[in-house]
Amino acid sequence: MAKPTPLSGFPELLPEQRFVEQQVVDTLREVFELHGFAGIETRAVEPMDQLLRKGDTSKEVYVLRRLQETDAGTDAGLGLHFDLTVPFARFVLENAGKLEFPFRRYQVQKAWRGERPQDGRYREFTQADIDIVGKDELPFHHDVEVTRVMVDALSRLEFLPPFRLQVNNRKLIQGFYTGIGAPDPAEVMRLVDKLDKLPADTVRGMLVEEAGLSAEQADRCLELATIRSADDSFVDRVRALGVEDPLLEEGLAELAALVRGCAGLTGEKVSIEADLSIARGLDYYTGTVFETRLQGSESLGSICSGGRYDALASDGRTTYPGVGISLGVSRVLVPLLNRGALVADRKVPSVVLVALTSEETRGESDAIATALRTNGVPCEVAATAQKFGKQIRYAERRGIPYVWFTGDAPGEHQVKDIRTGEQVAADPATWTPPTDDLRPKVVSSTDQEQQ
Amino acid sequence: MAKPTPLSGFPELLPEQRFVEQQVVDTLREVFELHGFAGIETRAVEPMDQLLRKGDTSKEVYVLRRLQETDAGTDAGLGLHFDLTVPFARFVLENAGKLEFPFRRYQVQKAWRGERPQDGRYREFTQADIDIVGKDELPFHHDVEVTRVMVDALSRLEFLPPFRLQVNNRKLIQGFYTGIGAPDPAEVMRLVDKLDKLPADTVRGMLVEEAGLSAEQADRCLELATIRSADDSFVDRVRALGVEDPLLEEGLAELAALVRGCAGLTGEKVSIEADLSIARGLDYYTGTVFETRLQGSESLGSICSGGRYDALASDGRTTYPGVGISLGVSRVLVPLLNRGALVADRKVPSVVLVALTSEETRGESDAIATALRTNGVPCEVAATAQKFGKQIRYAERRGIPYVWFTGDAPGEHQVKDIRTGEQVAADPATWTPPTDDLRPKVVSSTDQEQQ
Repeated sequence: MAKPTPLSGFPELLPEQRFVEQQVVDTLREVFELHGFAGIETRAVEPMDQLLRKGDTSKEVYVLRRLQETDAGTDAGLGLHFDLTVPFARFVLENAGKLEFPFRRYQVQKAWRGERPQDGRYREFTQADIDIVGKDELPFHHDVEVTRVMVDALSRLEFLPPFRLQVNNRKLIQGFYTGIGAPDPAEVMRLVDKLDKLPADTVRGMLVEEAGLSAEQADRCLELATIRSADDSFVDRVRALGVEDPLLEEGLAELAALVRGCAGLTGEKVSIEADLSIARGLDYYTGTVFETRLQGSESLGSICSGGRYDALASDGRTTYPGVGISLGVSRVLVPLLNRGALVADRKVPSVVLVALTSEETRGESDAIATALRTNGVPCEVAATAQKFGKQIRYAERRGIPYVWFTGDAPGEHQVKDIRTGEQVAADPATWTPPTDDLRPKVVSSTDQEQQ
Repeated sequence: MAKPTPLSGFPELLPEQRFVEQQVVDTLREVFELHGFAGIETRAVEPMDQLLRKGDTSKEVYVLRRLQETDAGTDAGLGLHFDLTVPFARFVLENAGKLEFPFRRYQVQKAWRGERPQDGRYREFTQADIDIVGKDELPFHHDVEVTRVMVDALSRLEFLPPFRLQVNNRKLIQGFYTGIGAPDPAEVMRLVDKLDKLPADTVRGMLVEEAGLSAEQADRCLELATIRSADDSFVDRVRALGVEDPLLEEGLAELAALVRGCAGLTGEKVSIEADLSIARGLDYYTGTVFETRLQGSESLGSICSGGRYDALASDGRTTYPGVGISLGVSRVLVPLLNRGALVADRKVPSVVLVALTSEETRGESDAIATALRTNGVPCEVAATAQKFGKQIRYAERRGIPYVWFTGDAPGEHQVKDIRTGEQVAADPATWTPPTDDLRPKVVSSTDQEQQ
């Protein structure tokens, strides 16, 4: 077999990169569980009719076929899920009788889209979603809760650049458009959503031509979209535009409550702002909407998005409203890993290499390794009984910080920190490394520059 | 949307079942890392020509196609991987220049096969693989190592039934077949492998008719296959059959070393035995072979299999020998979960429900929850300010053991263990539950019967 080449759009990580991703996923999971969110996984496949309900994404779906399938077998009409929301909505309907509502779940899984690959956009990628789903109703305070959870989680991803969470509320903007007399508020929302890609003047022209607004109405919509604030001062600025509408008032109250509810949690690492230009175009959100930018990676677009669905799922009799956020784990990490901005300081989990004096005494080295593992110290025994200098270089190449030398008697064991050269006597039954050395550490390029 | 129904062969778990699976995966990962194995993930797809190299599995492959694909685009010829060995071999070749050998990796991922679903056999399933791969050579002691790692891992899955690991060595049986003068030892191996499905008499007939053995040769092959021992006493029993062959000697020495090397690790939870009937039929093993039975689930067949490949991968210039074992996580767990033999004692990670006095004081309850989380205590705040009796039942339905009642002053907080009714004063800044309560526990049906 010739040397294989990577498949475009299907990123894979080396062990020292995968460790970074694993640490992100572990941190997310820990925070989600601290907030009472239960982990689930859904199958990778859904019936095509489910996947195509949002008509716009049809081109992205991977369809499955069994190689030996000759008829329209049971698998005909299955495709790989392109997000975790469609499968979750189906899971809730399918298992509603066995779930307790409000149901808080997190889900970290791969999804697939047949899009043209580009930086941050992959054909296979990992998403981390949190959602809270109610039965028939879901009070607004859960919108605040889900935001607080994601802010808490992102705050703990210490080695990543700062995040800026942008929130808005569809009721606010839809009420505003209704209040100024827009004939089709949904169309206005769709066009205003283009402001991050098109110049304001172009959008203004579209608002007049495609949404039937007067020039003055279009200007007010654009003026609303310029409003940003890190606190609830946006309320006064919207009021100053002099538009009145009950839905607008409801949206203002919700968005203000959300920004206030997160005030104590934000800081340098994660900031939050009301940004009245955020609309989330075609998605079926009905209230709160989120987008998130990663500092230094703004070209990736939103890396963590979501919002409130008044009908995440419905079986005709019961409706399940939900609110959730989805973090694009691959979208955030893979570009940083690919350009070497993040890497672990080891290629292996081992913190100790147990040196080998001769192949005949491998059993003794194994026994030391077993003793270390009993105390939770990851370690490995040297592969061959080379000269100790070579065994030390074996450890160095892998980033293993300690080498253990077996003594002839228990008191004669020595452990060497190969970074400093310091070598001390140690007992395998009790020795543990400093906590800081126990697991591989993530090194960001900023750290490396400081060294 | 009507209520969806499950897809046969694509099992999904409720939160209280997923917790069990997650705990198994966490334990496996912890043990693998203690032994210095690095975690990787490979993409879900491989080129079809790679997947079809083992011709026999072709019927099981799921082929992908982009829905809007009109030509033979870049994705034509991709399929979902049906195991983790094929992708790992490709990963090693693709990244050989960036890996350190011997390369120890673990990989816990889903795989897909379009087989007819049955108990323990699914179309989507999770595998946990460990492998050690060398460059050009891989000393035999790594066969012992990989077995020890899996024995260590299985030993820590406390809530699962006992495991019986059966080991053999292809050199041993191939050398034996050569030694008795079999014209086609590989064909003998393929037929002997049928002993777990067919009666010995039937296999004897096939050995004569299909492998060209004399009746006496066939009898000796079957006699070899009856030999089992938990220690290295099988060596004498094989020698007593009076067959001489250099490959047989090599196999005997390796298998004896493997059984002796694991002796200290086995016990009631995991037993190991040399079982000379194990051949692993069509797979490309060249030395050590493993199978594993789960007590009480013998009908599932082997739930953890593997062995030594002298050429796991090769690019023509360099050959990468490997030895590994693959645990069928879904095959072991899903039948036990489906019949209720295993379940977690909570539907949520929360150990505390913080009660809510009124919607107006939600901020105070949130502050208590934040304080508890700072100390690593998973918790959630009540969804609505119902009567406390209803809030306690809310906790009971989810299996949350503690309910926290907010006091008017810091000293007045109370926490109630709703299992015992005991209620004590507590400080949210310092209170933690007993360690045993911190995470949901796995309850096996044996435990339940004892209650």
